[in-house]
Parts: sequence; structure tokens; C-alpha cells
Amino acid sequence: MKLAKITAWIDRVLDVKSFPDVSNNGIQVARRGDDVKKVAFGVDASVRTVKAAAAAGAQLLVVHHGISWGGGIQRIAGGIYNVVKAAMDADIALYAVHLPLDANHAYGNNYELARFLGLKNLKPAFVYHGVTIGVVGTLPNGKKVGVCSGGAGMHAIDAKELGCDLFVTGEADWGETIAAENIDMPMICAGHYQTETFGVKALAKAMARQLKVETVFLPREQC
Amino acid sequence: MKLAKITAWIDRVLDVKSFPDVSNNGIQVARRGDDVKKVAFGVDASVRTVKAAAAAGAQLLVVHHGISWGGGIQRIAGGIYNVVKAAMDADIALYAVHLPLDANHAYGNNYELARFLGLKNLKPAFVYHGVTIGVVGTLPNGKKVGVCSGGAGMHAIDAKELGCDLFVTGEADWGETIAAENIDMPMICAGHYQTETFGVKALAKAMARQLKVETVFLPREQC
Amino acid sequence: MKLAKITAWIDRVLDVKSFPDVSNNGIQVARRGDDVKKVAFGVDASVRTVKAAAAAGAQLLVVHHGISWGGGIQRIAGGIYNVVKAAMDADIALYAVHLPLDANHAYGNNYELARFLGLKNLKPAFVYHGVTIGVVGTLPNGKKVGVCSGGAGMHAIDAKELGCDLFVTGEADWGETIAAENIDMPMICAGHYQTETFGVKALAKAMARQLKVETVFLPREQC
Amino acid sequence: MKLAKITAWIDRVLDVKSFPDVSNNGIQVARRGDDVKKVAFGVDASVRTVKAAAAAGAQLLVVHHGISWGGGIQRIAGGIYNVVKAAMDADIALYAVHLPLDANHAYGNNYELARFLGLKNLKPAFVYHGVTIGVVGTLPNGKKVGVCSGGAGMHAIDAKELGCDLFVTGEADWGETIAAENIDMPMICAGHYQTETFGVKALAKAMARQLKVETVFLPREQC
Amino acid sequence: MKLAKITAWIDRVLDVKSFPDVSNNGIQVARRGDDVKKVAFGVDASVRTVKAAAAAGAQLLVVHHGISWGGGIQRIAGGIYNVVKAAMDADIALYAVHLPLDANHAYGNNYELARFLGLKNLKPAFVYHGVTIGVVGTLPNGKKVGVCSGGAGMHAIDAKELGCDLFVTGEADWGETIAAENIDMPMICAGHYQTETFGVKALAKAMARQLKVETVFLPREQC
Amino acid sequence: MKLAKITAWIDRVLDVKSFPDVSNNGIQVARRGDDVKKVAFGVDASVRTVKAAAAAGAQLLVVHHGISWGGGIQRIAGGIYNVVKAAMDADIALYAVHLPLDANHAYGNNYELARFLGLKNLKPAFVYHGVTIGVVGTLPNGKKVGVCSGGAGMHAIDAKELGCDLFVTGEADWGETIAAENIDMPMICAGHYQTETFGVKALAKAMARQLKVETVFLPREQC
Repeated sequence: MKLAKITAWIDRVLDVKSFPDVSNNGIQVARRGDDVKKVAFGVDASVRTVKAAAAAGAQLLVVHHGISWGGGIQRIAGGIYNVVKAAMDADIALYAVHLPLDANHAYGNNYELARFLGLKNLKPAFVYHGVTIGVVGTLPNGKKVGVCSGGAGMHAIDAKELGCDLFVTGEADWGETIAAENIDMPMICAGHYQTETFGVKALAKAMARQLKVETVFLPREQC
Repeated sequence: MKLAKITAWIDRVLDVKSFPDVSNNGIQVARRGDDVKKVAFGVDASVRTVKAAAAAGAQLLVVHHGISWGGGIQRIAGGIYNVVKAAMDADIALYAVHLPLDANHAYGNNYELARFLGLKNLKPAFVYHGVTIGVVGTLPNGKKVGVCSGGAGMHAIDAKELGCDLFVTGEADWGETIAAENIDMPMICAGHYQTETFGVKALAKAMARQLKVETVFLPREQC
Repeated sequence: MKLAKITAWIDRVLDVKSFPDVSNNGIQVARRGDDVKKVAFGVDASVRTVKAAAAAGAQLLVVHHGISWGGGIQRIAGGIYNVVKAAMDADIALYAVHLPLDANHAYGNNYELARFLGLKNLKPAFVYHGVTIGVVGTLPNGKKVGVCSGGAGMHAIDAKELGCDLFVTGEADWGETIAAENIDMPMICAGHYQTETFGVKALAKAMARQLKVETVFLPREQC
Repeated sequence: MKLAKITAWIDRVLDVKSFPDVSNNGIQVARRGDDVKKVAFGVDASVRTVKAAAAAGAQLLVVHHGISWGGGIQRIAGGIYNVVKAAMDADIALYAVHLPLDANHAYGNNYELARFLGLKNLKPAFVYHGVTIGVVGTLPNGKKVGVCSGGAGMHAIDAKELGCDLFVTGEADWGETIAAENIDMPMICAGHYQTETFGVKALAKAMARQLKVETVFLPREQC
Repeated sequence: MKLAKITAWIDRVLDVKSFPDVSNNGIQVARRGDDVKKVAFGVDASVRTVKAAAAAGAQLLVVHHGISWGGGIQRIAGGIYNVVKAAMDADIALYAVHLPLDANHAYGNNYELARFLGLKNLKPAFVYHGVTIGVVGTLPNGKKVGVCSGGAGMHAIDAKELGCDLFVTGEADWGETIAAENIDMPMICAGHYQTETFGVKALAKAMARQLKVETVFLPREQC
Repeated sequence: MKLAKITAWIDRVLDVKSFPDVSNNGIQVARRGDDVKKVAFGVDASVRTVKAAAAAGAQLLVVHHGISWGGGIQRIAGGIYNVVKAAMDADIALYAVHLPLDANHAYGNNYELARFLGLKNLKPAFVYHGVTIGVVGTLPNGKKVGVCSGGAGMHAIDAKELGCDLFVTGEADWGETIAAENIDMPMICAGHYQTETFGVKALAKAMARQLKVETVFLPREQC
């Protein structure tokens, strides 16, 4: 299948172009070849993930966290060199999709995580850089829970204003932890990586089903 | 002792005014009274810390992390309201000092931590927002160790360039962890709070000794 | 009546959230209590106004000029400390609403002032930071008059382009005065405070009528 | 005398090039001719001032407030057109010097005004956009007075911190007036124009004396 | 004919006000007189063009490149002085229109140039500062050609992505030339001035026809 | 010879670290190997230059124009991909040095070009982004000539102010050409590439002489 057809599918399904994002979403490292037989999925564009994608026989690696943010890459050196070199050596293209994957209602990290937690009455919440990426729902016992994957500790304050009894995120830095404590807002930090596997896995499944292309999710512990 | 005399002492000893800092260093909440009998020290300006300072009979609370950053406080509400209210009720002034306390060679978080770790040949390193705040030293076995307190995971890359065998910081976010892994740089995250108690304690001792004013350090676990 | 219900009413009636504004509109100082029996209104959040609100038995003070602008409050000290202390001591919440009150057609400073001046055929005019806040109308004698409350001397130029015979504002600084002179545009500076009492009073009346809550306007000369 | 020689003298005497300033100091409107017989001085570059300069037989007009600020002039129209046209018609060059004239110890607005008020022990004070432009001194009765010409009402706060008993400026806007009131700082607003004639006049005299060129000050009331 | 009527016509026909543009489109130099008998058109607001307009008996000069960009004119000196002086001496108003003239489908530089080149199936392309200004079309032989007048060498990359066989622009700087070479994109640089005469001429013709006002195009080689 | 030793030599000789520059000077693409036998020099980091460097047996390519500017590289695709791929395939490191090479008095583009033109009494001139990069000198006939390599057409204005009879640069865009014409400043555009071979060649020679490493200059016409 043509690389451009696959990336167009992701762009469309996740509405990628309409999201402002500090991540430079889309193709971050191109490749020579045009044909893709297998697509690997991972949370992070690390050397380990790229090599695992190569070992799995993939020509395209889709990740939540790429290597190009904001202004871009100033020097192709150090860890960035290692990732780019590994991708070029294996002729693997790297496609990154950040906030559009957090926010998506069908396959996104937060809605998937909320469903995994058994929450009902899901409603979008938590505005990150102008984009609503998280979700609020209710447990069977009626308690209200806010969910925002990744490093979203700053949203504990919003969870309080929304009347949540609990806020679930991936990680919070120390200042965010103190801020949550100062307003008595219970917060669970379930791991930046772990909370962001949900959307990546869901996207891999959907692509396989809809595009009839082989996909594989690469768990970090097996890379 | 006059409040202004104490804050002038900190300003001078830590050279506070010459540091660019996203923290608005100095008095962040004033007080009515002018006389200070006891000075409390803590890492964070939390409700718990302010109340502990009041319970300890202090009129001034010196912290590493204050409540006013960058442009300042837009709304005195939520956790900020709680901290300000607690300080005003107890007529306690709040003084914050961030990077100047990280960077100081005599009493700073990093030099103190490096000495605690038994490092020798200490040299300043790790430039944060234009300020060199950390330190590099050597263990008795000759291994080179970089030390940068607080949330300094982004400096693992600098530690690599400096030829460090190990990098010690307080906390690193997930992206910084992946970046360190991609360049094979071992990193210990010893806790944002824990690594920043060193300078706060050293400053409290120095003030008591030099100004002959009573000081007390407020450990988080006892607040 | 619940504080949140009252602020929601102002937000809705003046469409507060849709206005970009250098004023951080909304609650600027929270309070402990939740119930409001009386609402005081003033032009400025000064110590005198807050104390007058307390003396009048109010739990909420609504002002046109608050204490938090742009990035916010860097240090709760000096005059800001005095205002916050006075508000906290009296457990009075402070709500500020700036441009939305200038611009409103039903209760705003400019439309109210224009009606007071006997102007007809009122049309919105004078764009301030992207928001149309003033008004142009005609006197019985057919003369065209531009009205823009507060410190809007820079809009004398716009008044000229609109073909006004007279421009009425609150205050103009020296440079704006020279600029108006250079284009032969007559300008009346009727006082920043005075021109902005019109909207504040109108809002107080409307709230009393619609929410059935007791309100009081605090004239500066009686504070 | 060559125009370039005269402007070089002002640049040197007031150290114009070293001042950051929102005014684009220096020549703001050039002229065809190169020779200058008479130099007129005014506070503002208004149509009236330019015409008075022409009537006085000047080829160069030096002002405190020019017509080009910040990014510059977007359209040569309206009042700006009138000023430029008047200057070009009379072949008069326009030279503006703003903060360097406020700040100068020998001829500046503030030191001259302070001496006029009989203040002693003059010391620089009041930092405006990174430049110290005002002065603090003492009256014969020992009272401390801060002086900052023009629109410097925002410096009442600094005057309070410096322990002044009185603050003298040209004009203050309403918000600055309230801020001064909130800290109980008496402030005299003596007129933006009036407080800035002092430096302009002193510069005119010094130029006549040192460069042996004819100079004339144009009082606003005679323009 | 009134000057304001003519500029209103251009504003409407080219939809000038809706274009963000680094050029300060519209009147850039006003004039005293109100009546216009003849309108001159040129690509650039140079001394030569202004004098040619005067010699041709025009009262208004419409250009693609004016003299006021971005923040504006900081000093009316040097070449800017010469242009303004020439315009004021001849009492000629200067009107500039930049991107709106590049982009217009009926009279714009790019659509006119594309029609001149015999391209068919014209579609808008090439986004410059948020505005789509160029065009893509096909030659009779089926080859795809991108057209973007002026200094648009940076758009060779976009032409490649659009699948063009050739990219025609006015000028490209050296870095853009190398960038085009690195992706094997043939590019013709036909002259900044030459490619931008097409729209200027078309607008002159349309104005004469629609407004019944005399117009004249001023070729650079005859100025 | 170690790669780090060579780059340290350039950094020192051209004082690279002290120059603010929109080019991200230094290593822009790293390499695996550490040892360098031959160093190639070119003006531009193009695919052709990188391949020529590989064909010449070099392990390091030093260029005046690299591939990373400002914020950096957002996507390693298109021409950037081609350059990086070519460099990685040949295991060639890419080192870019921009303004420091323009400005250097011993080996820089401008001083070298000025000496080639036979200019005497060379003095630094032409400030580009805060850095003085060009030079002014005199011909045997006493005429004054300004020299500023590359795309420096905007400096014709400065040449005028310096009293130059001629200004020599590499390229000028159309607006700069008109601006020079408006002030009657003769300007020669000798080619962006051609004017910047002077410094690159001089640096190659100096490195060979001082470091005893083999160097080669790659002329564009032979790539």
C-alpha cells in the first residue's frame, strides 16, 4: 500500500491538520521507498522502538511522541542522530501524531482509558493549548472522574472546578502536585507511557480493520 | 529584627537581584507588622507549610517555590487563595527564592547535595534559562557525576556532553527519560522535593548564625 | 443567593467570556463563604471602595477596574496587599468586568452615557484592542458626536474619520491631545471615573431587578 | 552650520544612541538643505510648533515628543501628514529626543525641575523602560521629594518605596491615581507639557552657548 | 472624481481590507486636494515612478510596492524622504496594494500571468503569510505549471508537492535556489518587476472601464 | 585526527560561539566514526556538495550555508532528507559556519574579497543582525567601496551613509534594488555564491596549514 494513502487515512480519521500542536505532526522522517507492507505502532520514537519496528518488518512507524517539536531539530546529533540513523538504515518512515490522538473520541488515549476504567456519560474536558483533549465521566457509584493522559498534572485544578472526586493522569510534576494538594484534589498518576498506550493500540487495530494493512503494536517492555 | 533587614541579607548573600528567573523572587506576600522574631524555611509555599510556619511562631516564611511565577497571579482563588489567606491570617510574610538558591556555591541546593554525595573537584555546570545552577564532581573511584536538583531531566544531555558517568536530578518527565535513554545516559531521579531541601536547610543555618535570628526548617512530612 | 449564580448572571448578561481584555475579568479575589445577601458596585477596586462595600454589608463587590491585569499580580504587597487584605478581612469577593461593561448596548458605560447626552441613532464605534466599545450618535441639532468612556483619547482620530463634530471621552493623555489638535478634532475629557459610573449603575439596577438581590452603588465621593 | 554637526552635538551631549527608547530619537524628518542658521526648540512636534519654527526663521526643530514611535509611521495622513507637510514646505528638519532629555543630569527635564523646586542632594531614581530618568531630592525642611516629568504616574509606587513624602510628575492616568491613593502617596500632577519645558529650554541655552548657533524656545501659548 | 470614491472602488474590487499583509495597504501618503482627474499605475513607489506620475498629470499613484511595511516608517529620510517629497510637491496621493493584487482571480498578477502563459484549469495555490496568492494550471501538452509572481522562490517546495513539472516565479534568493535543486524542481525566475506588471496593468484597465476615470500605466523603462 | 579537535579549531579561529546567528552554527549532522582524514569545504550543504565530498574521500564537510536555521528542521523530508541521507550513507559529518565566516578579518568572505578587489585601509562595516560582517576600503584612485558578501542588498543604505562611491554585494532582492536607486547608490551584485567562496577557500587553506590535515575546496561547477 502507498505510504501517502496510509498517512492520509490517519490525517482524516484523527483530523490531524486541524489541531494546533507543539508536536510537528505528520511525517517527521521520510523514506526512499513508497510501498508499505506493515505498520508498527509505539508510544515513543526511541532507538529501541525504531529497531523493534525494523525487526518486526515494518516500513512505517506511527508514534504518539515524535522527535520534532516546535521550531524543530537544530542538530541531528546525539539521541536524535541515533533515531534518524536507525530509521534511515531500515528505510522506515516515522509518523508522529500527538494531541489529535489524545483527543479523538473513537480511538484516542483518553476516551479509550475512560472506557477501560468503566466510566459512563463521557464528556470532553481539559483544554490543553487550546485543544480539549481529556474526558470526564462517572463511575457506577456516581463518583465523577476526570481523565487526562500523559503529563497533565496541571489539569487537577480544572478537575476541581468541574466537581470531580478524582483526577487520573499519567504524570504530574512537583509543582502540580503541590497545587493539587492546596485545593484538596485527589490525583492518580498512572504513568505517562501507560496511559498513552490506549490510543496507540486502538489506532493500530482500526487501521488494520479499515485499510486491510498489517499492523503491530510494540510494547516498550519487549523493545 | 526588621523584616527589611532579613530580606536584604538574603538578597545579598544569594545575589538574588542579578538572577533572571521565572520565579518572582523576593517578597510575594507582604505583611502588616514590621518586626520578625522567627523565620521558618520550607521548600514549597503550600497551605500546609504556611500553617506549620504559623504554628512554629514564625513571622516570615522563606521558600524555594513561591506562588508567583512569570506574569504573576491572575486570580486570588483556589489554592492560591488558600495560601494567601493562611499567610494573611497569621500575618506571615512570604519570601521566595528559586534559581539563586539552586546556584549558590556556599548554600545552594546543588553544591550542598554534591558535598552530601561525597563529590570532589566541584565545578559549576548545567545552564538553566541562562543561569548555571548545577555542579559536576568526581567520586572517590574517579567516576564523574553531574548534579542538578529539582526538575532538571533535560540536562541529562548536557551531562553526556560533559562526559559524566551518572546524572543525578530530582525529577524527569517522560520525554526527558526517553531522551536520556537514547544517548545511554544513566540518570537517578531522587525526588524534586528531597533534592531541594539541601539548600533551604543550609540557608536557614547560615541565617541563624550570621543574623542571630531564630530559624526553623519545616520538613514536609511533619507539616 | 449563591455567589456562582450571580457571577454566572453577569457573565451571561454582559457576554464576559467572549471578550479579549487586558483585564482578567471575573472573580479576582475569591471568598470563603458561598452565600451572598447584598452586592456592592463601584468603579474601582480601591481600599476605600472595599471598605465601603463592607460597611454597606455586601459580600460581593463588582467593579469596572479590578486589581489583576495582563499576566497578573507579581507581588501581593503595597496597595494590592491593602485591597486584598481588606477584602479577605471582610470576606468580600471581588469581581471585575472591564471591556464587556464598556461595550454593552443595554447597560454599558457608552450607550448609557450617550442616552444621558440625548444622542439618537446610536451606532457602535471605536475599536479598542479588537473590541468595539464606544458609540456614535446625533444631537437634536444634527451634530454628530462620538462617545468613548474612560481613557480613550486615542480614538479622537477615529472620531475624525467618522465625521464627528465632537468627541467625548473620559481622559486623554498629552500625546493624544496633541494628536487631536493636529487634526482639528474638538474633544471633551469628562473624567475617567465620571464617564464610567453610567454602566456600573445600570448594571446594579438590572441585577436588582432581574435577580431579586439587594444591590448598592458606592459613589467615590462617599467612600 | 552643518545640520550633521548640530545633531552630532545633541547625540553626544545627551548620549542619545545609548538609550533604548520607544521614541525613534534623532532626525525624524530630513530636509533638502544642509546649512542651519537657527534652531527652534519645542516640547511637541505639532503643526503649530512647526509653523512657529518656520515663522521664527529656523531650519531645524528640536522636540521632546516627535512623530515617530516604535515601529514608525504606517500612513503619512491626518495629523502626521499635516506636520510633515508643514516641515517639508518650510524645509525644516525635525529632530526628536525623548528619554535622553528626561534623564540628563546637566540639562534634563527632571534635574532642571528639581533645581527649580529648590531640592538638594539630588540622586537619580525612577526606572522607565530600563532607563533611570527621574530624580529624588530633599526640601530645606528635610522632606523627601521624587520628581519624574511627563506621564509618570506609575512611579508613585517607586516614590513610596524610596520613602518620599511627595511625588511630583506631569500627568497620571486614573488607574495610577487610584494606585497612589491605595498606598497613601501624595502626588502632584503639574502638567505633562509644563514639566517638560525645563529640559528643552536648558538644551536650547546650552546649544547656543557651546555651538555659537542661534536658538529659540517656542512656548506653546505663543504658537 | 473624489479620491475616496476611487480608493473605495479598489478596496472593494480587490477585497483589500480582508487580507493580512506586511504591506500597509491603502493610502500611504495623503494629499491636500480631494479631486482626482487621472490615476497613474506603477509596480514600485520609487522617485522615478512618482515623478513620471506627476509628468503624466496624475493626482493619484497606485502601486504594488509602497513605502510603508510592517510597523511603518521610522524616519522620513533618505529614499523615503525623496519619495514623500516628490509626492507632496506634486500633490499626488500614494495608494499601495500588495497581496490583494497578487491573489485576485480577475485582475491579479498570478492569474493574469497564467493566462498570458496559456495555462488552463487554473486553481489557486501557494500560501504566502496565510494568503493563497498564486495559481497552478496545465499547458496544452499536459504539463503542470505553478505560477507565483514576485519573490516567491520559497514556494518551489510547494510546487514539488503539488506535482508541478515547472515553477515560474519572479525572483529566488540563493538559499531558495539550492533548496529547489535539492528536490529536482525546475524553476524559472522571470523577474520580480516583470511578473508583477500583469496585475497592475489589468487593474488600470478595469478602473478606466468601470469608473470612467482616465488611467495610465507607467512602464519602468520609460520612467 | 579527532573530529572534535577539528571543530574546536574552527570554533576558536572564527570565534564561532560568540556570534548570534540565525544559522545553527557547528555540527548540524553528526557521524558515527570519530576519526577524520580529509576535510571538504563548500559554500552550500546541497546534495551535490555532500556527494562530491564523499567522492573526494572526506569524512567532514564544512559549509557556509548549512541545513539548520532558527528553530531547526521540522521534517526530515524532501531536500533535507536527501542531504541528511547522503551524509549518513557516506558517514560524513556536516559542520556549518555562517556569520563568523563572513566577519572574520583573517579568513572571512568580506576581508578576503576586499583584498581581492585591491582595497586598502580596510575597516569593519555593515551590521547584520547585531554583527558587523562587512568591510569598507579605498581603491587606488581614492574611491570608497563597501563590501558585504551574500544577500546584503539592504546594506546599500548604510553604504550611502558611510559615503561610499560603490557598494559590492552578492545579491539584492527587488525591494533593495529600488531602495538603492532611490538614494542614488551604485550597487554591484556579484553573485551570492561567488562572493562567499572567498572565505571558504581561505579557511580550507588555513586549516591545512595549521592542523596538518588534508583539505579540499569543492567548486560548485565541478559538483
